[in-house]
Amino acid sequence: MELKNDRFLRALQGQDVDVTPVWMMRQAGRYLPEYRNTRKQAGDFISLCQNPQLACEVALQPLRRYAFDAAILFSDILTIPDAMGQGLYFSEGEGPKFKKVIRSEQDVDKLPDIKVADDLSYVTDAVSLIRKELNGSVPLIGFSGSPWTLATYMVEGRGGTDHSHTKVWAYLEPDGFGKLIKLLTDAVTIHLLQQIESGADVVKLFDSWAGVLAETQFRRWVIEPTTEIVRRLKLAHPEIRIIGFPRGAGVLYQEYAHATGVDAIAIDGAVPAAWAAETLQRDRTVQGNLDNLALMTGGETLTNETHRILGALGGGPFIFNLGHGVLPKTPPENVTRLATLIREWKA
Amino acid sequence: MELKNDRFLRALQGQDVDVTPVWMMRQAGRYLPEYRNTRKQAGDFISLCQNPQLACEVALQPLRRYAFDAAILFSDILTIPDAMGQGLYFSEGEGPKFKKVIRSEQDVDKLPDIKVADDLSYVTDAVSLIRKELNGSVPLIGFSGSPWTLATYMVEGRGGTDHSHTKVWAYLEPDGFGKLIKLLTDAVTIHLLQQIESGADVVKLFDSWAGVLAETQFRRWVIEPTTEIVRRLKLAHPEIRIIGFPRGAGVLYQEYAHATGVDAIAIDGAVPAAWAAETLQRDRTVQGNLDNLALMTGGETLTNETHRILGALGGGPFIFNLGHGVLPKTPPENVTRLATLIREWKA
Repeated sequence: MELKNDRFLRALQGQDVDVTPVWMMRQAGRYLPEYRNTRKQAGDFISLCQNPQLACEVALQPLRRYAFDAAILFSDILTIPDAMGQGLYFSEGEGPKFKKVIRSEQDVDKLPDIKVADDLSYVTDAVSLIRKELNGSVPLIGFSGSPWTLATYMVEGRGGTDHSHTKVWAYLEPDGFGKLIKLLTDAVTIHLLQQIESGADVVKLFDSWAGVLAETQFRRWVIEPTTEIVRRLKLAHPEIRIIGFPRGAGVLYQEYAHATGVDAIAIDGAVPAAWAAETLQRDRTVQGNLDNLALMTGGETLTNETHRILGALGGGPFIFNLGHGVLPKTPPENVTRLATLIREWKA
Repeated sequence: MELKNDRFLRALQGQDVDVTPVWMMRQAGRYLPEYRNTRKQAGDFISLCQNPQLACEVALQPLRRYAFDAAILFSDILTIPDAMGQGLYFSEGEGPKFKKVIRSEQDVDKLPDIKVADDLSYVTDAVSLIRKELNGSVPLIGFSGSPWTLATYMVEGRGGTDHSHTKVWAYLEPDGFGKLIKLLTDAVTIHLLQQIESGADVVKLFDSWAGVLAETQFRRWVIEPTTEIVRRLKLAHPEIRIIGFPRGAGVLYQEYAHATGVDAIAIDGAVPAAWAAETLQRDRTVQGNLDNLALMTGGETLTNETHRILGALGGGPFIFNLGHGVLPKTPPENVTRLATLIREWKA
């Protein structure tokens, strides 16, 4: 289907654009009153993800308000481990948790052979619906958590810890832990292929906890599985564009960008823009990296930080985004202001 | 006083050494049974810090077991805000917290004019005692939290959050927040001068939450105050050597190293060693950066990771350390093994 607005895809292909394309991580989220209403209707967050009609509705909400250049599937990065029977739940103010944990090769061997097609049909149904409703207006981004990040949640049972169970297991028994990573690499690949076949134009890999690893472990558990996923996706769909986001990778963003073969590298808010322009943007598209607290603050802070980022990165292949998801307390009018700043900016 | 072992100071001055010097962050800590005994005697962690005799005892304990090349003052990075009346306390398993929080310029104006000399005499007494007991065997490191990190604890009331109160205040009212940073810059400088005058040979600045800032904020709240502290310390004591540790700074380690004028840059476990060798070690000493979980794991993991780091950094001015503090569950014999690996390593 011919897209009415292909800025986002053009930027991903390194082609010229009239203005810098923009979308935001968690653009469908709690900062929008209409999102809060739909979520209330669904019951809770997981029920919202699992209801394709309502997931489609919230995915479209930000596009009705803002001139964003892409839609993103509304789902969660932890749907794959949940489909493996780990028992995903959310405890208020503490983020996602799992009822079961995986801490040995025996635990891995007992994991059910998930039929991603069946067990995650609510995700692919949402992709199809959103794609249909978009009706060629803007491209649709599908996504998945990356194997390392999914593994940390499965091993720790939650996020945001020191990841000691996962890291020690990976050090002590790289073959056993590697089985879990391999299983997740397969599942992520299959799940993303299904999203692509259901209508996702682009896919993004979220590796939220990539930044906690020493370089040897980063290569083995972040770069290697990501490279394999990219290879298999491109083999099946040579035209697919892939965005990688190894959050917090610091200096290692560079090696990740080159080694994995992703088309675009998404960077967090702490990455200096001039460095990203010199080292990452030289041979691929960069996406990022406004501090979500600068967006929440608004005013001069928002203007200055937006202009700074555009000044450093806006001349090359670039997609404007945040360095992390939009925060629930963000005033929706700050997002309007951000979109205007980007539209009005001249290199 | 002539030091019996001056490897650490020589490495800090970029001079040749016979073997790579080593010490560990939190080398006096819960992984040692003798530490746990002394702490029990003191009552709790804060009482231990505030008792110069017992603080001296625990500072010396690791040196009796291991061939470390430096001692470090036993204290806490949060003594300065505690002396300002913020009410430091530790809640089990949750890290340090403050009873009061500072969230406005008015709150800053109400902070007492601390007399660092009086209120923190337990710290300088500990420095004098440790120095005396060391009797010229190895150098003594004094330390302080850096203004940004101290400010985050004072504003948030605790560590490990998203730092949103601190970051938004700094964005909205840089002058008001800047008053807090200036006050802390003065207090840190005075406190470190007193430690130097009490016998510290080297001082280290811990900026544990430097990695959460966008580059503009990193320059203003991390680099600027650190540069000012370094300038004032060197003005009063041109011979003093200063180690800076802006944990998690990623690509910005480089700018920090050059702009602040620290003699050595300490790096966390995620920094690739070859990058550190090329960019940081070129004109100053590097300290780091073994993953504390690799030390806890031991065995081949410990050997391989230690050799990897020595291979990349051992040829230049280098001090072996961890990327973060030693973990309580670390087997003490792994530390013996680490010291041996370093002593036996040949470039």
